[in-house]
Amino acid sequence: MKLQVTQENLSKALGNVARVANTRGTLPILANVVLRTVGTRLTIAATNLDIAITHYIGSKVAEEGSITVPARLMQDFVSSLPSGVIELKLDDYKLHITTDQYNSVINGISADEFPVMPAITDGTSWTLPAKAFKKGLQQVLVAASSDEARPVLTGLYIHTEGGKLYIAATDSYRLAEKEIMATKEEINLLVPANAMQELLRLLGDQDTDIEVTHDDQQVLFKVGEVELVTRLIEGKYPDYRKLVPSEFATTATLKRADFVNITKVSSLFARESAGSVTIHLDPETKQVSIRSIASQLGENTASADAVITNEGDITLNSRYLLDALGTLGGADVDICFNGKLEPCVLRETKASDYTHVIMPLKS
Amino acid sequence: MKLQVTQENLSKALGNVARVANTRGTLPILANVVLRTVGTRLTIAATNLDIAITHYIGSKVAEEGSITVPARLMQDFVSSLPSGVIELKLDDYKLHITTDQYNSVINGISADEFPVMPAITDGTSWTLPAKAFKKGLQQVLVAASSDEARPVLTGLYIHTEGGKLYIAATDSYRLAEKEIMATKEEINLLVPANAMQELLRLLGDQDTDIEVTHDDQQVLFKVGEVELVTRLIEGKYPDYRKLVPSEFATTATLKRADFVNITKVSSLFARESAGSVTIHLDPETKQVSIRSIASQLGENTASADAVITNEGDITLNSRYLLDALGTLGGADVDICFNGKLEPCVLRETKASDYTHVIMPLKS
Repeated sequence: MKLQVTQENLSKALGNVARVANTRGTLPILANVVLRTVGTRLTIAATNLDIAITHYIGSKVAEEGSITVPARLMQDFVSSLPSGVIELKLDDYKLHITTDQYNSVINGISADEFPVMPAITDGTSWTLPAKAFKKGLQQVLVAASSDEARPVLTGLYIHTEGGKLYIAATDSYRLAEKEIMATKEEINLLVPANAMQELLRLLGDQDTDIEVTHDDQQVLFKVGEVELVTRLIEGKYPDYRKLVPSEFATTATLKRADFVNITKVSSLFARESAGSVTIHLDPETKQVSIRSIASQLGENTASADAVITNEGDITLNSRYLLDALGTLGGADVDICFNGKLEPCVLRETKASDYTHVIMPLKS
Repeated sequence: MKLQVTQENLSKALGNVARVANTRGTLPILANVVLRTVGTRLTIAATNLDIAITHYIGSKVAEEGSITVPARLMQDFVSSLPSGVIELKLDDYKLHITTDQYNSVINGISADEFPVMPAITDGTSWTLPAKAFKKGLQQVLVAASSDEARPVLTGLYIHTEGGKLYIAATDSYRLAEKEIMATKEEINLLVPANAMQELLRLLGDQDTDIEVTHDDQQVLFKVGEVELVTRLIEGKYPDYRKLVPSEFATTATLKRADFVNITKVSSLFARESAGSVTIHLDPETKQVSIRSIASQLGENTASADAVITNEGDITLNSRYLLDALGTLGGADVDICFNGKLEPCVLRETKASDYTHVIMPLKS
């Protein structure tokens, strides 16, 4: 292997790929990245066996070849080099990296010892709009579970219904759903949420389409020069839609910034009660007030002006409430519920493509 | 106690003071801040028994009084409030905090149970220029030890010699000294370096003088509305000056940015050798090159253009070298030494008020 690449391209590719390389696993070679020439391009790839990321960069290839080198060292090293041309040359298993000022050798391991990267040979292909999907991931992933005891809840559910594509996540305490686009496809995929966190990072300011290809076992997301492959989660996703009420006994509309502030302040006093705060909607004073459950520390009531349909009380986990408010855009938000123990819905006022549901606590 | 303060002043004071409040100690009340009216002012104070910080703020005092409340809660709470007037009112040991939108009660503990804050009644007073002292602290504190086994080395040595005030620190592997100002005082103080880290934080963009008062046991630094008192360290500071050579067999002058870059890159390959890198000065090629000791990972040589008086080699800990380069200003730096095992001096080219010495490693 002998080739030239620019520091900028190589550093960017290593930045995208090296994160999935794993130094703590049982297979030491998974801490490495694979460098391999493919025609006039260099591929940089890494995998943790669940997720594989491959980045293609243009290069002047003089001799073909492949090698694996420690991901962390290679990334730190290349990102410290000045911008400009870098020469990579393989001599046995030693990768020589040369620039004007720097002359380095990194000891590698043969690419033959690296696990075979997953690939999809016979799958269904379709496209996703990058910007809308990115926004959706930012709004929905927060509700996914990280508890491996119920694997289906650690997934992002990408599915079509009535000619529309939705993404959804729930950890059984809260639920988020976003409508992404109209489509004629029939899609029903359960993708690990942590792989989607990686995809979110790869998306950056990408404005083009994401090419998706899936079979029964795996799914591939192609974003410009980067490919992410991940396994699919087996199992049936819960019928979450039956949890979302369509009508509400009471609704308050208030400034999102106000709601965030009064929730933050109240949450400080709710540490001993596991974050539990009680929200009171008062149509007479036209105020939403949040009360922290009295504790050893003290107590707090904070209020904000609101438009309110009916009186009502509900007790929520303040962290979930802050997470939900963090996913909403716009100046005004609605909080809607029926009874003290029924699901509470948060929405951007006058926007119907995103719904966030929090299950109340017993107060 | 009943008074009004602005959120801005109270939040700033709590930010300065609450850091020294300690939630992990054996005396739970040290996790609290003391609020106490003094005439028309409110004092906010905390101590970890080594360091005490007191901040004075203007307030409209309607009723005098004092209380202690949990520092962390009070700080998080006040910093979350909107700017404007806050009313504090003590009812038994409950501190009521009220604004337009917020109505809170924090449960306090009587200020009588708080340890007596250290005070200096009969000391010597002098002044320090805030900007020069701040710059000096930033340059010198990095060389102080954090190893309590040798208490004197955990101190910042503030002392006069030949009509000048110097500050110095050493952990026996490296040493930094800065000339602060000309003075007629005779000063010889050994102040805990961690107290000086706190002072550095308090200094901010302060441009006025720091008022210093000390006796045999303690020293007080007064910066605007804030006072920091700390104990002095007992013991004789080592005669560090005899370690600093005055003449050098070889000197290289190079761009500081280049020196930082080649050291950073080389340090990546020096992880297995505890950071050890070898610097080679070559007057013929007019280059300073840094070589990482060959290891399992690989090896690296990086070089930069320099003006060099004589050939020479020295092996240093790359972390200490990066720390030293981080404390130097200016575009160009000098590295000077005599033999492979003698102290290595780093200086900003043409600046004589700051000296950084690193002891070499055996290579």
